[in-house]
Amino acid sequence: MKTDLNNLAARTGEWLRGGGAENDIVVSSRIRLARNLTSYPFTSRATAEQRGELEAILSERIMKVDIAEGAAYLNLNELSPIERMLLVERHLISRELSAAEGDRGVAFTPDEVISIMVNEEDHLRIQVMRCGYELEDTWRIVNEVDNKLEHVLQFAFSTKLGYLTACPTNVGSGMRLSVMLHLPALVSTRHLEKVVNAVAKLNLVVRGLYGEGTQASGDFYQISNQVTLGKSERDIIQSMQDVIPRVLEYERKAREGLLTDNRKKVEDRVWRAVGILRMARFITSEETMHLLSQVRMGVNMGLVTSIDLKTINEILIQTLPAHLQKMNGRDLDSEERNIVRADFVRARMAKVS
Amino acid sequence: MKTDLNNLAARTGEWLRGGGAENDIVVSSRIRLARNLTSYPFTSRATAEQRGELEAILSERIMKVDIAEGAAYLNLNELSPIERMLLVERHLISRELSAAEGDRGVAFTPDEVISIMVNEEDHLRIQVMRCGYELEDTWRIVNEVDNKLEHVLQFAFSTKLGYLTACPTNVGSGMRLSVMLHLPALVSTRHLEKVVNAVAKLNLVVRGLYGEGTQASGDFYQISNQVTLGKSERDIIQSMQDVIPRVLEYERKAREGLLTDNRKKVEDRVWRAVGILRMARFITSEETMHLLSQVRMGVNMGLVTSIDLKTINEILIQTLPAHLQKMNGRDLDSEERNIVRADFVRARMAKVS
Repeated sequence: MKTDLNNLAARTGEWLRGGGAENDIVVSSRIRLARNLTSYPFTSRATAEQRGELEAILSERIMKVDIAEGAAYLNLNELSPIERMLLVERHLISRELSAAEGDRGVAFTPDEVISIMVNEEDHLRIQVMRCGYELEDTWRIVNEVDNKLEHVLQFAFSTKLGYLTACPTNVGSGMRLSVMLHLPALVSTRHLEKVVNAVAKLNLVVRGLYGEGTQASGDFYQISNQVTLGKSERDIIQSMQDVIPRVLEYERKAREGLLTDNRKKVEDRVWRAVGILRMARFITSEETMHLLSQVRMGVNMGLVTSIDLKTINEILIQTLPAHLQKMNGRDLDSEERNIVRADFVRARMAKVS
Repeated sequence: MKTDLNNLAARTGEWLRGGGAENDIVVSSRIRLARNLTSYPFTSRATAEQRGELEAILSERIMKVDIAEGAAYLNLNELSPIERMLLVERHLISRELSAAEGDRGVAFTPDEVISIMVNEEDHLRIQVMRCGYELEDTWRIVNEVDNKLEHVLQFAFSTKLGYLTACPTNVGSGMRLSVMLHLPALVSTRHLEKVVNAVAKLNLVVRGLYGEGTQASGDFYQISNQVTLGKSERDIIQSMQDVIPRVLEYERKAREGLLTDNRKKVEDRVWRAVGILRMARFITSEETMHLLSQVRMGVNMGLVTSIDLKTINEILIQTLPAHLQKMNGRDLDSEERNIVRADFVRARMAKVS
């Protein structure tokens, strides 16, 4: 299992591929479904013993239904804090599941498209993530996994309310749909607020890179649905399909505007970012993300051609604290990480010019 | 004459060579002597006609005494504002002489070691500049030039006061001795003020790169004597010889301290500067100087070996506004200069890694 996680850190998961529709702006599309068993109280109300039973049953059933070839189940209690953080950084588990105590785990496929958390706020959180703007495909896959699990598990469901969940905001479909976007031009032209306001009117919400309460880093934002009650899965997908194309249009117009108004200044910003990344000897995760965001914009504007989105995504994630430590095979304090990170980035970016 | 100035911009003059004693800190040593003819009023009191006569006599005599092979005399009225600024940027004339009106000029040798201004604040300002810490040699040369000129000109001299000058601070020897220093470590450790105060007690003064009233750019500072009255040339040289070794010691200790306390941070600062200079598409003269200062420190600390001081000095001066315009053969506004400057720096720094 330890070996698996070593490989994981160095590997390119699904959303890191950098492909998919509208990939100049859309990093990934993600759906998660909240599901609970009828026969047990919600996780927060369950005893340690009940949580232990839940974990045993759920992990066994998940592996039995064979969600996809090569899927593995990890008991989080058997992992070190760095290994748990590694899974958070890859969006395979939530920060909450990582920080929780007691029996809990996650099953995920080698391509990292599917991950299923056990004993998060809900007994099961089924997540499917695809790179690019791929709502239909993401929905098709998560639906398949949900159906497979429904054959072997009895989910709490009310004909009036729909799926019952620990938090009322998830009752109904139990679905949260999130699209992760890279919006550097809207940020730099200070038009992001308009988007946030427009999106809010449709009961959608804009969040940072790692979900609720996290800061947006490197101009990456997630747009997610806020409530599920009284809305079908189709309604939620439809509201996203109403909004995302408009956001994409705003961002593209802002990028064109930047190039038209002051191409040199944009080129300068992008290439200075390349210069610093290629030469720094000490760099924080936050600055790395900020600079890679500029480079990513440069690639998508056609200004930089000697690096691809996949490489940028890999550097982005592999310079996060847990990845850095896992790949170096040892614990590193914050100062050491800043040095090791700079060395790693320099090596990966050496050819960019 | 125009052709001469084109060559000048692209050429490496004496103080740009980057050699001489203590050249890790001392950029150049400079002495200028103020001299006036007995037979005319000081420049500021002379009529336009008298200034014309002075210019005719002085330029003729300067060329006649043959100060050095290949010396040329330029009448500043025949130069464009950019050409005059070019001479200021190279320290061949003062900003005051450039900005003045009426008949005035400068003679200088091809190696730019000797320059003689005509109709500055004094009728003659004889300047000798050497790279590195070379007080004795500089004094020897300026003395020779002064002697040659004294054979063919009658200088205003009082046996009681010494040489008479337009400004009382220059009366006596008429000598100003300036040593240009690169003090990045004292600046970054905030110990420069101590040096300024210590120097002031010895009647020396710390000034910016282009003399009185100018800002220090890129951590370059000049230490000069303040007054001349009642002091012999030897006294002035001696007071500089008392002070400079101590300043050099402070700066070297500060550099060692930076490396000992946080080598990585210093390396980071130096290499980021390289990265930005290698990649920027838009850069001001001030930022260029600031970043080149970091690189220069890196070279002198042994952190950067793929560029030499001569190249750094050349980039420093050739990216100044007049040099940039002269080398491009046309007037450039400030925005255009920032682009052309970035292109120039990028090309010159491409191999630094």
